[in-house]
Amino acid sequence: MPLVTIDLIENVFTPSQKRELIEKVTEAMVAVEGEKMRPVTWVRIKEFKENDWAIGGNPLNASAVHALAAGKAA
Amino acid sequence: MPLVTIDLIENVFTPSQKRELIEKVTEAMVAVEGEKMRPVTWVRIKEFKENDWAIGGNPLNASAVHALAAGKAA
Amino acid sequence: MPLVTIDLIENVFTPSQKRELIEKVTEAMVAVEGEKMRPVTWVRIKEFKENDWAIGGNPLNASAVHALAAGKAA
Amino acid sequence: MPLVTIDLIENVFTPSQKRELIEKVTEAMVAVEGEKMRPVTWVRIKEFKENDWAIGGNPLNASAVHALAAGKAA
Amino acid sequence: MPLVTIDLIENVFTPSQKRELIEKVTEAMVAVEGEKMRPVTWVRIKEFKENDWAIGGNPLNASAVHALAAGKAA
Amino acid sequence: MPLVTIDLIENVFTPSQKRELIEKVTEAMVAVEGEKMRPVTWVRIKEFKENDWAIGGNPLNASAVHALAAGKAA
Repeated sequence: MPLVTIDLIENVFTPSQKRELIEKVTEAMVAVEGEKMRPVTWVRIKEFKENDWAIGGNPLNASAVHALAAGKAA
Repeated sequence: MPLVTIDLIENVFTPSQKRELIEKVTEAMVAVEGEKMRPVTWVRIKEFKENDWAIGGNPLNASAVHALAAGKAA
Repeated sequence: MPLVTIDLIENVFTPSQKRELIEKVTEAMVAVEGEKMRPVTWVRIKEFKENDWAIGGNPLNASAVHALAAGKAA
Repeated sequence: MPLVTIDLIENVFTPSQKRELIEKVTEAMVAVEGEKMRPVTWVRIKEFKENDWAIGGNPLNASAVHALAAGKAA
Repeated sequence: MPLVTIDLIENVFTPSQKRELIEKVTEAMVAVEGEKMRPVTWVRIKEFKENDWAIGGNPLNASAVHALAAGKAA
Repeated sequence: MPLVTIDLIENVFTPSQKRELIEKVTEAMVAVEGEKMRPVTWVRIKEFKENDWAIGGNPLNASAVHALAAGKAA
């Protein structure tokens, strides 16, 4: 039953990071719900186009998020 | 009012199958709610990129779903 | 894989109508995708509180939807 | 906390109209919730492919929506 | 076509504030898309239970959001 | 930016398990994206009413999910 949807902005994460997000989030779910629930634990990534996601009215592109991740002001 | 969202993985269904999904699901809704509700019955398809949808931590691509549909192990 | 979410307003449909929506929509999906996909076909109903869903700025309650279904102006 | 998601069909709005939607909707939210909530007010646009969004079973493309916006029957 | 979903935490806004959010967001949409699109502009509020929405791992209740809105640390 | 939504059926998990899901999933996200992204990592739980979530057309209640988690047929 559990369905997890991870919303991201395109081009922020590499394919291998996305794969890692799916794996780690699945393990986090199974750790709480129990191993038997694994086959019905679905995890999905949904990506939004750059500039289609705004915080406080300011659209974000991948560079802005990378700057934020590096500890600079967005 | 009713809004139906069908989440799929890209490249699993052909355009004509997607069209058929929309038609059949709309008819299923109208059969229960009544014909007068048809103009406010919205049905949408949202597609996820291949490998962005995982079951039990295993990302699925279109081939894996086709194998499943054909009765083979995913 | 297919995940269908049916968004409704509370108190518009009876529990048996909701059950019927789930059954008919599931059958509509399986008719297109094939019987083998049934175990991975998930259908869900998500209900919104009355007046939390507006068309053109006018919030709808269950009575308004019933009037619409009966062919009266909403 | 507030998270607003605006679902659109691709190619209906220009990039500058989409930018304007994000700005105006953000301001509408902040006008009610107060200026202090701006940094936690997220607004996103999610686009559906043409013909993946149907009303009453009729898939819409951008032209159909433009005709509707111009006051013609969809 | 446009569908707007406003995600909130329960008990943060009063019913009249929620009504105002729906009205102002609808007007913001119509201002960009044109008056003819009003009848197909749907705006909805979806509420999450208190403590079911976390920022950085810290669940928020209505009091925490009110403190944030008043300019105090969350 | 990352927004994670965990869809569950009501009464399957206790409040403390839900809290644990939020914490573990947040940590899984931060482990990949970096600590600086924590303040913009939002994780939410959305609960569906029992019997409003069906697999293969069979509505699930909390007991059915508990039986599944215990290794019995759903």
